[in-house]
Amino acid sequence: MRKICVVITARASFSRIRTALLALSDHPEAHLDIVLAGSSLLDRYGDIRTQLKQDKLKIAAEAYHVVDGADLLSSAKTVGLGIIELSNIFVQLRPDIVVTVADRFETMATAVTSSFMNIPLAHIQGGEISGNIDEKVRHSITKLADLNLVSTEIAKERVIRMGEDPKTVHVTGCPSIDLAAEIMKMPDLNFDPIEKYGGVGSEISWHDGYLVAMQHPVTTQFKDSKKQILETLHAISDSGIPTFWFWPNLDAGADDTSKGIRSYRENNRPENIRFFKNMDSLDFLRLLKNSLGIIGNSSVGIRECSFLGVPAVNIGNRQVGRDRADNVIDVDETRLDISQAINRILSKPNLSGSNLYGQGFSGEIISTKLLEFEMSFVKTLQY
Amino acid sequence: MRKICVVITARASFSRIRTALLALSDHPEAHLDIVLAGSSLLDRYGDIRTQLKQDKLKIAAEAYHVVDGADLLSSAKTVGLGIIELSNIFVQLRPDIVVTVADRFETMATAVTSSFMNIPLAHIQGGEISGNIDEKVRHSITKLADLNLVSTEIAKERVIRMGEDPKTVHVTGCPSIDLAAEIMKMPDLNFDPIEKYGGVGSEISWHDGYLVAMQHPVTTQFKDSKKQILETLHAISDSGIPTFWFWPNLDAGADDTSKGIRSYRENNRPENIRFFKNMDSLDFLRLLKNSLGIIGNSSVGIRECSFLGVPAVNIGNRQVGRDRADNVIDVDETRLDISQAINRILSKPNLSGSNLYGQGFSGEIISTKLLEFEMSFVKTLQY
Amino acid sequence: MRKICVVITARASFSRIRTALLALSDHPEAHLDIVLAGSSLLDRYGDIRTQLKQDKLKIAAEAYHVVDGADLLSSAKTVGLGIIELSNIFVQLRPDIVVTVADRFETMATAVTSSFMNIPLAHIQGGEISGNIDEKVRHSITKLADLNLVSTEIAKERVIRMGEDPKTVHVTGCPSIDLAAEIMKMPDLNFDPIEKYGGVGSEISWHDGYLVAMQHPVTTQFKDSKKQILETLHAISDSGIPTFWFWPNLDAGADDTSKGIRSYRENNRPENIRFFKNMDSLDFLRLLKNSLGIIGNSSVGIRECSFLGVPAVNIGNRQVGRDRADNVIDVDETRLDISQAINRILSKPNLSGSNLYGQGFSGEIISTKLLEFEMSFVKTLQY
Amino acid sequence: MRKICVVITARASFSRIRTALLALSDHPEAHLDIVLAGSSLLDRYGDIRTQLKQDKLKIAAEAYHVVDGADLLSSAKTVGLGIIELSNIFVQLRPDIVVTVADRFETMATAVTSSFMNIPLAHIQGGEISGNIDEKVRHSITKLADLNLVSTEIAKERVIRMGEDPKTVHVTGCPSIDLAAEIMKMPDLNFDPIEKYGGVGSEISWHDGYLVAMQHPVTTQFKDSKKQILETLHAISDSGIPTFWFWPNLDAGADDTSKGIRSYRENNRPENIRFFKNMDSLDFLRLLKNSLGIIGNSSVGIRECSFLGVPAVNIGNRQVGRDRADNVIDVDETRLDISQAINRILSKPNLSGSNLYGQGFSGEIISTKLLEFEMSFVKTLQY
Repeated sequence: MRKICVVITARASFSRIRTALLALSDHPEAHLDIVLAGSSLLDRYGDIRTQLKQDKLKIAAEAYHVVDGADLLSSAKTVGLGIIELSNIFVQLRPDIVVTVADRFETMATAVTSSFMNIPLAHIQGGEISGNIDEKVRHSITKLADLNLVSTEIAKERVIRMGEDPKTVHVTGCPSIDLAAEIMKMPDLNFDPIEKYGGVGSEISWHDGYLVAMQHPVTTQFKDSKKQILETLHAISDSGIPTFWFWPNLDAGADDTSKGIRSYRENNRPENIRFFKNMDSLDFLRLLKNSLGIIGNSSVGIRECSFLGVPAVNIGNRQVGRDRADNVIDVDETRLDISQAINRILSKPNLSGSNLYGQGFSGEIISTKLLEFEMSFVKTLQY
Repeated sequence: MRKICVVITARASFSRIRTALLALSDHPEAHLDIVLAGSSLLDRYGDIRTQLKQDKLKIAAEAYHVVDGADLLSSAKTVGLGIIELSNIFVQLRPDIVVTVADRFETMATAVTSSFMNIPLAHIQGGEISGNIDEKVRHSITKLADLNLVSTEIAKERVIRMGEDPKTVHVTGCPSIDLAAEIMKMPDLNFDPIEKYGGVGSEISWHDGYLVAMQHPVTTQFKDSKKQILETLHAISDSGIPTFWFWPNLDAGADDTSKGIRSYRENNRPENIRFFKNMDSLDFLRLLKNSLGIIGNSSVGIRECSFLGVPAVNIGNRQVGRDRADNVIDVDETRLDISQAINRILSKPNLSGSNLYGQGFSGEIISTKLLEFEMSFVKTLQY
Repeated sequence: MRKICVVITARASFSRIRTALLALSDHPEAHLDIVLAGSSLLDRYGDIRTQLKQDKLKIAAEAYHVVDGADLLSSAKTVGLGIIELSNIFVQLRPDIVVTVADRFETMATAVTSSFMNIPLAHIQGGEISGNIDEKVRHSITKLADLNLVSTEIAKERVIRMGEDPKTVHVTGCPSIDLAAEIMKMPDLNFDPIEKYGGVGSEISWHDGYLVAMQHPVTTQFKDSKKQILETLHAISDSGIPTFWFWPNLDAGADDTSKGIRSYRENNRPENIRFFKNMDSLDFLRLLKNSLGIIGNSSVGIRECSFLGVPAVNIGNRQVGRDRADNVIDVDETRLDISQAINRILSKPNLSGSNLYGQGFSGEIISTKLLEFEMSFVKTLQY
Repeated sequence: MRKICVVITARASFSRIRTALLALSDHPEAHLDIVLAGSSLLDRYGDIRTQLKQDKLKIAAEAYHVVDGADLLSSAKTVGLGIIELSNIFVQLRPDIVVTVADRFETMATAVTSSFMNIPLAHIQGGEISGNIDEKVRHSITKLADLNLVSTEIAKERVIRMGEDPKTVHVTGCPSIDLAAEIMKMPDLNFDPIEKYGGVGSEISWHDGYLVAMQHPVTTQFKDSKKQILETLHAISDSGIPTFWFWPNLDAGADDTSKGIRSYRENNRPENIRFFKNMDSLDFLRLLKNSLGIIGNSSVGIRECSFLGVPAVNIGNRQVGRDRADNVIDVDETRLDISQAINRILSKPNLSGSNLYGQGFSGEIISTKLLEFEMSFVKTLQY
């Protein structure tokens, strides 16, 4: 029996690991301990606990360590306090291996704590490239990790070039694709988003086509967060297309992005936008699948939408360097560029999906690799 | 005027940066802020403040964050609390660039804090290879650092292979060699170690030749710390050669090593060993230069002793992978192997020094590179 | 020159010390260091920095230590992290005496840190009685404080009965009354609240009479926060009287109170309520002075309103035990009781003001007592 | 079944609660959770875990939170980090009531955490009077505690005068007396201290009479710690009487006291003193019972020795105000005064024991009171 401890620090990370959790919780050789930490526990970023309950996944421990202030200083402190909290939890749970997911800033706390306590560390989704603090966090964790489970072939190549032992690097695809694969069996929109989730803002009439929008602050430019979000809001408002807009999750700068949205909403009362905090993942994917496209800088546009064949207008450099299929149109953070790209996706023919990020079995593969890993927390550079 | 903040977390790190500090404090374009953190502030690991005073180097801030317990849990917490402390200090000092030195576990706190606060980070002595948690810490910091100042050509090559931009990687040599170069102008032992530093244990008669010993716990094997230190103590006791023994600094396991030494001392009262907490660096180097050799697992045997031409019996795998000159004899942690190696260095002809780790101007070079660096805290993998 | 460090942890505390800060900042014998901590730094509880700027009061240091989650666990952690942060700030500022204000939970951090660092501690507004965790915090701080500056004669009596040396206990009145005294010189409402502060909700027509509402969660009953706030909202909505409603500040349970307000607003869209985050203090006092009365559980109803002669409907037991003048009507947390009390104040004749909480010179008196205090951090129980 | 959580922060506190723990662990209505925190976990202050094992008392959780540095800054940080650690442990254990013992600085962490989390708090040994930071801590905790279990009648009176409800204040005596009562059944020294515990220093010949010495630093005068300890060392050395000397436990200043002892030992090599870290409690009490007297400032001289009828030379003001029987001679911290007092106890006739601190059933009484307490975490000042 192998004790596997997965630390989830944000709602977004949950979708990157969910099907692996389901596979592990069913596996007779695995004892799964799920730890919730960071913003995954905070109401205003979406209650992940409800979703875990629906999946019959139990929570082994919770770590409250988000220091308020939503700027760079608080991000650092949040990681510091996170290390203190997680160290105690690891003593309590005594995991054989710890799993950290993706590259949000709080994942650094998981990686440092596990490494410093000589517990083997597995990292999900290393080897990718992006354009902000995530970039440093991701590769830094690769150098702390003893097992690297990556999404794509090119990510594997990069991790090995960074000096990791090829025997400890495996392509698994991304579990978010598993869920997308699941909805492809029944892709129709089987619920009314406003009826089910409410949201605030205008009563939009979405049945004849709609957009989805989701834009996070970029931590290296967080002073511009408010300006950038306003450009996007204007472009979408100009388009007149009914739009489901989702709030950003916790990041340095979150407050400015949120303030930008709030002030725009109160001053401009855009008639074609309705704002949501979050949705059940399957619902969200069906909403995407049936949309005209996604606008913003979320990785969902790059990943799930590539598999689903949904056009994505990707704004700014938050996703710079991420491997992408041909569903993505990259644009600058200007009202004009965003507007033009929206026009392009409206006139685009249907897209077919891509297998760049997996085929729909990533959860199973990750579960297997975690159970097969020859335990070790000692490694050296391979050159 | 560039504000350069150097964080020193341990006595050992100080010798790896000292001459760079002196060069920076004299430079008209640099405003140097020295921050003392971690074990560098704790009496029982050697008072670094006295040494800074002698060098007329001022302390800008102090961060007390060592959580007691001396095991892996405490190492993690020490880093967590260190991030909290350093984040406040960086807000207060507002540095243009932060410098972290080498690879002790507390340096992770400096690197994470600086990166998360979008302050450019320079790392001294990346790209080397060793055999414990330091290995992970070192390469992980390389991926957080915006400027890498390394000791050797081969280290530079490794850092670039890990994906760093060659324009941000420079060979500077190691400042510890600068000091060794300085004493080479007057290499004779110009003081009586016992008269000057006291020490405890036997009154050894060292004038006709002596050894120096220094052995740190190995964090990946910290449960064996006591056993390992006893093997070394027995071998040195067996040799009968007068020996100056130096206590280990703070590491997970430190207590077991220290306990091993204490219990050996009280039970065996070795007649040829005298124990010291620490010495002034110049005195220590002169002591080494005039010794028959160094026994243990300190990096001093690999670095300074290569330049000084002093034989080093390097025990166990703490220094595995470090580039080494021909002054080093590697042995296992057994009484027998250590004894044989001691015999070999006694019969060895004089060694000539090596320039592997620098020629004696590293401080100046580091100072220049820090001032010339084109400021940035954004980077991407170079492949 | 005496170095006096005042730690402000919440917007509410600022009004309890403001005129003392002004007196100290002007005094030639005082060096004033203002430290902002806790929720006083967080945008969503009202930006105290703007107000300090207007008063030409400089900030010496800031301590971000609010751990997110808004429940009891986070309150405890917020205090723990606060002690760590403040201890560093006190090392940096080296105050001769530290001042902590009133009894919010974060003030415990100031009191513990100062006591443990052997810095004399002055406590403003001890000796009062109330009905929640504040009660424990307040008296606990009395036992840590070396100088007690209290608001009323009866508070002085209580502090002395608790065993404090009478020579270290002084009645100063409450600085919040100083401000109320100031506006009494020109009591008319000289601004349009909606024009100046915006607010959200209905366009209320307030010129012919209005209420002010302000209700905080009660920490010992924080699970009922949502239910309690709804009762008040219903009662005010029922009254039909135009109402300016102010959001609660940070407390365990704040989220539930805020959620209650938000959900009520979205479901009921009350036509006679407009919601505000906060106002400039003078504006707020003028708003109160010209109102029909205040509804809720804020201490403003007990203190400032007693001096101003404004009726206060005081809901529940948050202010239980506070000394009160005859402007206060105490009611249970039920829609019916609150409605009846609103009717009573509407039919009430004009009230005259009371001097129970001071005459308008408290800031000066506090400043003098802080400067005259014979420094000591050692004391014993007086029986 | 009542869940009772007892937090032990130091070896010294353990003896103040031990027999209550034994009574609770046997009681069918009690579920006892013992939490070790602070210095109780640190090797160099005496391993409390061994003792718990001997007593078959299980540890429910451990909190490592001692921040190194041993001065006032570190004391504050230790409490701050302690609150963070204990808050998590209380979430995990979900106690019905938390028990904090006596008045060492770390107990503040227990008291604050429990109060802020709305968990009823019981305080053991409030209402006493002493002369340093303990004084503030003790009374401050009284104001946080919901149940006060005190040692003496006069302590009860004081706690009630401080405003506590008499129904929540009970005289229990001190559990340390229970142990003393136990050894009185077989008071002879039934072991050889040096044979059993080793110790370091001279081979003293103690069979014809000996002293016991134990001196802690005084936190309000911690800069004088070294000087004060030297006076005592000289006086005892002068006396020539064989002495068992015990190291101080963790306090701000501990390092200076320890340094004082070490430097004295190495410079003066006193022939009549042997140094010990600690002993099993029963052994220690038998050692005391058979001694000529105790020298120092430990509360053992005031408490256990009053019951045992052993003379105590109490140095300085660390125990000022503690209720004392006629076994105590108070002296200043000077070599001369201490020497004279030693002479007085040598010439003194046999003392009879006193029941001031209990009759030997305190553990049982505390256990009963904890189980009978009508649970509440809300209270108000009783005047």
